[in-house]
Amino acid sequence: MPKGFKASAVSAGIKKNGKKDLALIVSDVPAAVAGVFTNNRVQAAPVVLDKQRLAFGTCRAIIANSGNANCATKQQGMADAVAMTRAVSDALSVDPQQVMAASTGVIGVPLPVEKILSAMPNLVAALDPDGFADAAEGIMTTDTKAKLVRRQGEIAGRGFQVAAMAKGAGMIRPDMATMLCFVCTDIDMDASSLQQALAYANARSFNRITIDGDTSTNDTVLVMANGRSGAAARTPEQKDAFSALLAAVLEELARMIVADGEGATKCVEIAVVNAPDEKAARQAADTVANSNLVKTAFFGEDANWGRILAALGRTGVEFDPERVDIWFGDVRIVENGSGCGAQAEAAATQVLRTPEFSVYIDLKAGASHASVLTCDFSVDYVKINADYRS
Amino acid sequence: MPKGFKASAVSAGIKKNGKKDLALIVSDVPAAVAGVFTNNRVQAAPVVLDKQRLAFGTCRAIIANSGNANCATKQQGMADAVAMTRAVSDALSVDPQQVMAASTGVIGVPLPVEKILSAMPNLVAALDPDGFADAAEGIMTTDTKAKLVRRQGEIAGRGFQVAAMAKGAGMIRPDMATMLCFVCTDIDMDASSLQQALAYANARSFNRITIDGDTSTNDTVLVMANGRSGAAARTPEQKDAFSALLAAVLEELARMIVADGEGATKCVEIAVVNAPDEKAARQAADTVANSNLVKTAFFGEDANWGRILAALGRTGVEFDPERVDIWFGDVRIVENGSGCGAQAEAAATQVLRTPEFSVYIDLKAGASHASVLTCDFSVDYVKINADYRS
Repeated sequence: MPKGFKASAVSAGIKKNGKKDLALIVSDVPAAVAGVFTNNRVQAAPVVLDKQRLAFGTCRAIIANSGNANCATKQQGMADAVAMTRAVSDALSVDPQQVMAASTGVIGVPLPVEKILSAMPNLVAALDPDGFADAAEGIMTTDTKAKLVRRQGEIAGRGFQVAAMAKGAGMIRPDMATMLCFVCTDIDMDASSLQQALAYANARSFNRITIDGDTSTNDTVLVMANGRSGAAARTPEQKDAFSALLAAVLEELARMIVADGEGATKCVEIAVVNAPDEKAARQAADTVANSNLVKTAFFGEDANWGRILAALGRTGVEFDPERVDIWFGDVRIVENGSGCGAQAEAAATQVLRTPEFSVYIDLKAGASHASVLTCDFSVDYVKINADYRS
Repeated sequence: MPKGFKASAVSAGIKKNGKKDLALIVSDVPAAVAGVFTNNRVQAAPVVLDKQRLAFGTCRAIIANSGNANCATKQQGMADAVAMTRAVSDALSVDPQQVMAASTGVIGVPLPVEKILSAMPNLVAALDPDGFADAAEGIMTTDTKAKLVRRQGEIAGRGFQVAAMAKGAGMIRPDMATMLCFVCTDIDMDASSLQQALAYANARSFNRITIDGDTSTNDTVLVMANGRSGAAARTPEQKDAFSALLAAVLEELARMIVADGEGATKCVEIAVVNAPDEKAARQAADTVANSNLVKTAFFGEDANWGRILAALGRTGVEFDPERVDIWFGDVRIVENGSGCGAQAEAAATQVLRTPEFSVYIDLKAGASHASVLTCDFSVDYVKINADYRS
């Protein structure tokens, strides 16, 4: 684990089911901090607060609750977000500006902040260098499992650690998701370089996944770098190496989020190659990845490539339908816009029966590529989301 | 029924379940014809054929099959589409250019055209002035009921009739749907005015509905006006009156399509008012109408307005979330961005329990309005679409 961090989680009674719903991460010393947030015009109070506090460049703690998004809660919501960070800063005797907040859950219900304040002594008492798994559990909503990734790196012979947790499940699509992700590292790096590394890593990970096409009001990724390892990233090469490592960590979490999408039974990469330009490639991949008809066919393990072709056709991207090739894994099922026959279809169906596979779409209309991770669309997705608040 | 039209349908064996899958509509005399088609870049062979033949301005017959889309079928597909119209023109001794074709069903499978040719004698023999209901049944795919609307009008004391059939169910969204619609009228009107009337009526009906956000490769609306009533639309006022009548017919069909959407249990109007401009109003209405999270909440009869607010937030439309009002029917559930409390929520839940209701969203950001019809998103939608080809 990265040096100089502790974490904990408790049940504060925000979730009705009595599960852990309040998590705390603390650095022993002020850590450089970076963050990226939802692009949704409707932003939860803690998102607004964190964006302001990010300007200070350092952070000591992150307090996060699940079960309530503290969104569409107006002045009271902002007061509540400030209050939950103030309770942390009081308990730890740190500058209140150095505490970040995050919330996830239902929108439009006042945050039961008194429950958070009451739980604070137990939360602080539970802080432990081995508390990351607990904290990862504390931020879950409809996730079926906690998501934790650890990696290590080295700079000039000195090792450093990265530990990251995330929650995902629903309301996830490119340009951020209903997801929270907190990354702790003991590398020594300035806040501005850390922000650049996060922007790079985020574009390659969380901004390339989709569950249901909806985006959230609360998406937050925060990285704290406290320097306690003594490994310092100073040269551009050292910083780039960290960016790549961070990208690998976030990519792994992104894949875990998709695989654990609400009701998901399959994790599918949609890769579009040879598009006219990057924007078109991304648009084509996004449209296929978000098509309900494509996603229900994945669920049904039906190699219904006609739905993929139809989804491509409504993107506005310029291509000739009669030149398109489509591959399921290593099985070509469409060549120049036509099906490759019953044998190919049978082989493609075998690919569809695996829990993780790729769909390659060759537009033969240029030289740009893009890929997006998606999941299938199951009966359980509907059940989960029809019942979410009850 | 409009004078001078006959229709019929038979089972040609294209559908596996033995139901009617081939329909024919014939006018006794050449009829002025108008058409609108899918905007999807991938277009089925009959769509390409009809667009060419529309240039002739008159039409004698429409042949339509269900169970196979004849799409992504290349040269053979076009030859098959021509062959099915040729069989009609041979049997009726009319100019082959005066026969339109339409197909709906699975994409990428060769059309079993020999089944269509074999069924032709029975299909023609079954032609009957009262055969419209049969034909409406013959074009169904996952529709649970046939969709037929009749209206009458009058010009200068002479009555005329309009009869229209449609099929819908899945893969439907604004800018045309996987839908076929055939309108027969005995009004006397030139083809160019008929096309204008159809464009007007289509914008107010089929282009304002969504089932699942996907669009089809086969969407076709055709109108035949054979003049047999003797009622002639010549003045702009007479033509406008017909446009309005046609719009009313197509609006009724559009509502029937949404109410019979795949797995749908509710038909919901999303009305956005006071948006910055018309495009923004439409974009906001579309995004809410296509949000899986909003639609599953409708299915769950959960007045989860936070999802509506979150969907609005990702549209890119400029508005202040803290000024938005949301109404479910006549119950205001959000005022200036905040929930109106438990009592309002209970009343809104009662609205959600009805099969048809409106959601009004007041952005207070301008003076433009738009509304879109959508349905809820049910467990059955996923079941239907996971199993579609099996």
